[in-house]
Amino acid sequence: MSAKNAFYAQSGGVTAVINASACGVIETARKHSDKIANVYAGRNGIIGALEEDLIDTSLESAEDIAALKNTPSGGFGSCRFKLKSLEDNKVEYERLIEVFKAHNIGYFFYNGGGDSADTCYKISQLSEKMGYPVQAIHVPKTVDNDLPITDNCPGFGSVAKYIAVSALEASFDVRSMAKTSTKIFVLEVMGRHAGWIAAAGGLIEDEGIPVVILFPEIEFNKDKFMAQVDAKVKEYGFCTIVVSEGTHWPDGKFLAEQGTRDSFGHAQLGGAAPVVANMIKDALGYKFHWAVADYLQRAARHLASESDVEQAYALGQKAVEFALEGDNAIMPTVDRISNDPYEWKIGKAPLSEVANVEKMMPMDFITEDGFGITQGCKDYLYPLIKGEAYPTYKDNGMPDYVTLKLQSVDKKLEIFEV
Amino acid sequence: MSAKNAFYAQSGGVTAVINASACGVIETARKHSDKIANVYAGRNGIIGALEEDLIDTSLESAEDIAALKNTPSGGFGSCRFKLKSLEDNKVEYERLIEVFKAHNIGYFFYNGGGDSADTCYKISQLSEKMGYPVQAIHVPKTVDNDLPITDNCPGFGSVAKYIAVSALEASFDVRSMAKTSTKIFVLEVMGRHAGWIAAAGGLIEDEGIPVVILFPEIEFNKDKFMAQVDAKVKEYGFCTIVVSEGTHWPDGKFLAEQGTRDSFGHAQLGGAAPVVANMIKDALGYKFHWAVADYLQRAARHLASESDVEQAYALGQKAVEFALEGDNAIMPTVDRISNDPYEWKIGKAPLSEVANVEKMMPMDFITEDGFGITQGCKDYLYPLIKGEAYPTYKDNGMPDYVTLKLQSVDKKLEIFEV
Repeated sequence: MSAKNAFYAQSGGVTAVINASACGVIETARKHSDKIANVYAGRNGIIGALEEDLIDTSLESAEDIAALKNTPSGGFGSCRFKLKSLEDNKVEYERLIEVFKAHNIGYFFYNGGGDSADTCYKISQLSEKMGYPVQAIHVPKTVDNDLPITDNCPGFGSVAKYIAVSALEASFDVRSMAKTSTKIFVLEVMGRHAGWIAAAGGLIEDEGIPVVILFPEIEFNKDKFMAQVDAKVKEYGFCTIVVSEGTHWPDGKFLAEQGTRDSFGHAQLGGAAPVVANMIKDALGYKFHWAVADYLQRAARHLASESDVEQAYALGQKAVEFALEGDNAIMPTVDRISNDPYEWKIGKAPLSEVANVEKMMPMDFITEDGFGITQGCKDYLYPLIKGEAYPTYKDNGMPDYVTLKLQSVDKKLEIFEV
Repeated sequence: MSAKNAFYAQSGGVTAVINASACGVIETARKHSDKIANVYAGRNGIIGALEEDLIDTSLESAEDIAALKNTPSGGFGSCRFKLKSLEDNKVEYERLIEVFKAHNIGYFFYNGGGDSADTCYKISQLSEKMGYPVQAIHVPKTVDNDLPITDNCPGFGSVAKYIAVSALEASFDVRSMAKTSTKIFVLEVMGRHAGWIAAAGGLIEDEGIPVVILFPEIEFNKDKFMAQVDAKVKEYGFCTIVVSEGTHWPDGKFLAEQGTRDSFGHAQLGGAAPVVANMIKDALGYKFHWAVADYLQRAARHLASESDVEQAYALGQKAVEFALEGDNAIMPTVDRISNDPYEWKIGKAPLSEVANVEKMMPMDFITEDGFGITQGCKDYLYPLIKGEAYPTYKDNGMPDYVTLKLQSVDKKLEIFEV
C-alpha cells in the first residue's frame, strides 16, 4: 500500500488543549511517513476541506508542532459549521470526498464534539459508498464534557481546574473583605445544557469555602436560593455563588434574559452573574462582586490540568495509531481505571454509538438540595484537574504560544461556494 | 532597650501578593526577637486595632507563615474603613494609641494604598504628641499602582500579568473562531481612575493581536472607537477590546451606567464590557463574547508575577529592617535601576510626601489616538510581569493555600464601638 495523506480539522468551540490533540496527530503521523505521507489541516475546520483550503503541516517545524501542545485555541482555525443531513445536502459530502480524492487523502481525523462525531461517521459511510473509502476517526474535544462512552472530554479538565482555582482565589478575597465590604461573590461559568463546569466550582467546599451552585439541570427557585445564601453568610460571613450560564426559571427562561432594557428600550444581553448578584442585593442587602469568565475559562492554557493535556495528546496519537491498524468510524476514548492513584488508558468506541448521543451529568452528582455536588462527583472531578502542565514563558513574562505559518497546498479543483 | 511588640494590618482591597508582604514582615521580625517580641496582626485590618482584636502571629507555624507568600487575599482580613481626620474623630486615633500602649506595641506596619499611608503618617505624628511614640512604617500595596515615588505598587504586577496573559489566550480563541463565529472579544478590567491595568492588556499587540484599549483617562468617543474596531476586524478578521471599568463619556458618566433597567424598571448594575459589546453589535454587526474579570484578576495568585512576589516580600522585610534602624513615618519603595536586565532595589520615601498624593499614568504612555500604549509604557510594564512564581499544588490538583489559625490575644481594655 502506497502512503496516503491525512486530513485533520478542528471543529466548534476551541479549548486550552485541542492543539495538544493536533500535536499528537501530527507528531504520530510524522513517525509513520511510510504510511502517512503528509497531514493536511483544514483552514478554519471543515470549511477548509469544502473550500479546498488545505494547510500543509509539513512546512511547520518540529519545534512549532511541539509548541502546539502548550498553546491554547485552534492553531489551524475552527468553525461553527454543521453539515446538513446527507439527504438535505449530499453535495457537501460529495465535495469533501472529491477534495480528499484530489489530494490523495485516505485518513480523516476530525477533532470536535457531538456534531463532528456525526459528520465523521457519515464521511466514513459515504466515502465507502462512493468508492473512495476514507478511514474516519473522531478525536474527542469539548469543554461541555458531553460525549458518551469516554470517561471525560479533553478541554473539560482544564476548564474545571481553572474554575475551581479561580473560585477559590476569589473566595479567599471575599473572605478577607467581608467584615466591612463585599460578602457575596458570583462567578458565571459556561454550560448552557449541562452543569459539569459549574460542578467544578463546588470543589472549593473542600477548602472550607461556603459555596452555592446554580445548575442548568435544576430549575431556579429564588426563595430556596436566597435561604441558602443567607444561611451561609450568617454562618461564614460571606458566600460564593457559581452560576451556570444555562441556569433557568421553571418556565425555561434563562436567568440572563431578565427582560433588561437599555435607555433606548432595546433588550439588553447581560450575564446571569449580574442578575443573580443584584437579586441577592435586593433580597438580602449584601454587597457583591461578580465576574463572567467566558472565553478566559476555556482558553486558560496557563492553568491547564496535566491530566487533560496528556489525554488530549494521547487521543490524537492513538487516533493515528488506530487508523494505521485499520480502524474506521471510531473515536478513541479515555477509560478510567482507578481514581486513587489516578490511572487511565485509551480505549475506543464505534462512532455509531457516539454520534447524536449526549451524556448528561448524573443526577446523583448533585446534592439533594440542588445547590452542591456529592462525594461521587468530587471523586470523578479531582483526577481530571490533577497536575499542572505549564506552558513555557518568554523572558519578557509572556507565554511562548505558537502561531503557525499556515501555508496552503495548491488547489486542484473548481471553486466551491460554502 | 527592651523588646517591643509590632502591629501589622492589611488595608483596603486585597491582592495576590499582600500576604507575601505580611510574610516578609513576620519572618523578618522573627529574626530580630531581641527587638521585636511578637507581631500582632489586626483582625480585618485597622478595625482589629480599634476593637483590640489582635491576632497572635507567634501561634502560627513557620510553615504557615512561609505559605502566606504563596497565598492570595488578606490572610488576617482587611477592611474598607477610612479613619476620619484628626479633627473630626480624634477619639479613634487616641484609641489606637491606647491599644498600642496596652500591648506594648512600638512598631506599626500598615499595608495598604494611599489612604493607609495617610493614616500611618498621622499615627506617627499623634503618638509622638501623646507621649507614646510609635514607629509607623507604611508597606505599599495596591493593584491601582497609584502610590507616588515608588516605581510600582505590589499587587499591580500580578494583575498586569494575569490580564496580559488572559487577554492573549482569549484573543487566540477568537482568532480561531472568527471565520464563522465570534469576531469581537471584550475584556473588562479594574481601574476606576487610572488605566494601568487596561494598559497591561495592550502588551498583546506585541504578540500580533489587534487590540483596542478604552482608558479612564480618555473620554469615550463612540465614532472614533467604532472606526478603530472596524478597521482592525477588516484587517485581521477579529479584534480584542480591553475596557477599563472607569471608561466614561465626555459628561463623566461611566459606560457601565447605561441607564439599563430590569423588567421592574429598577436601574440595573452591569459591567462596561456588555455595554461595549452590544454597542459594537448594534453599530457593526459583529458577533461578540465578553468577560468581566473582577476579583479573579486581583486574586490570581496562580499566575503571579515573580517580580511582584519578590518585591512584595522585600518591601515587608525592609519595612521591619528600616524600623529597626530607627526609621519612622516612611514607606519603603521599589526603585528601578534598569529595564534590561531588570534590576531594582528597595529605597524609602517620607510619608509626608506619600500621603494624599496620587500618581497618575503618564499621558505619554497612551498612543496619540487614545486606544493603545506606547513603547515607553511597554518598557515600563514588561519588567513588572517578568517571571512566574507558582504556588505549590496539592496532589488533588488544588493549590495549597494557607488559612491561618488566627487566635486572638487576650483583651486588656474596655470595649470600643467602631
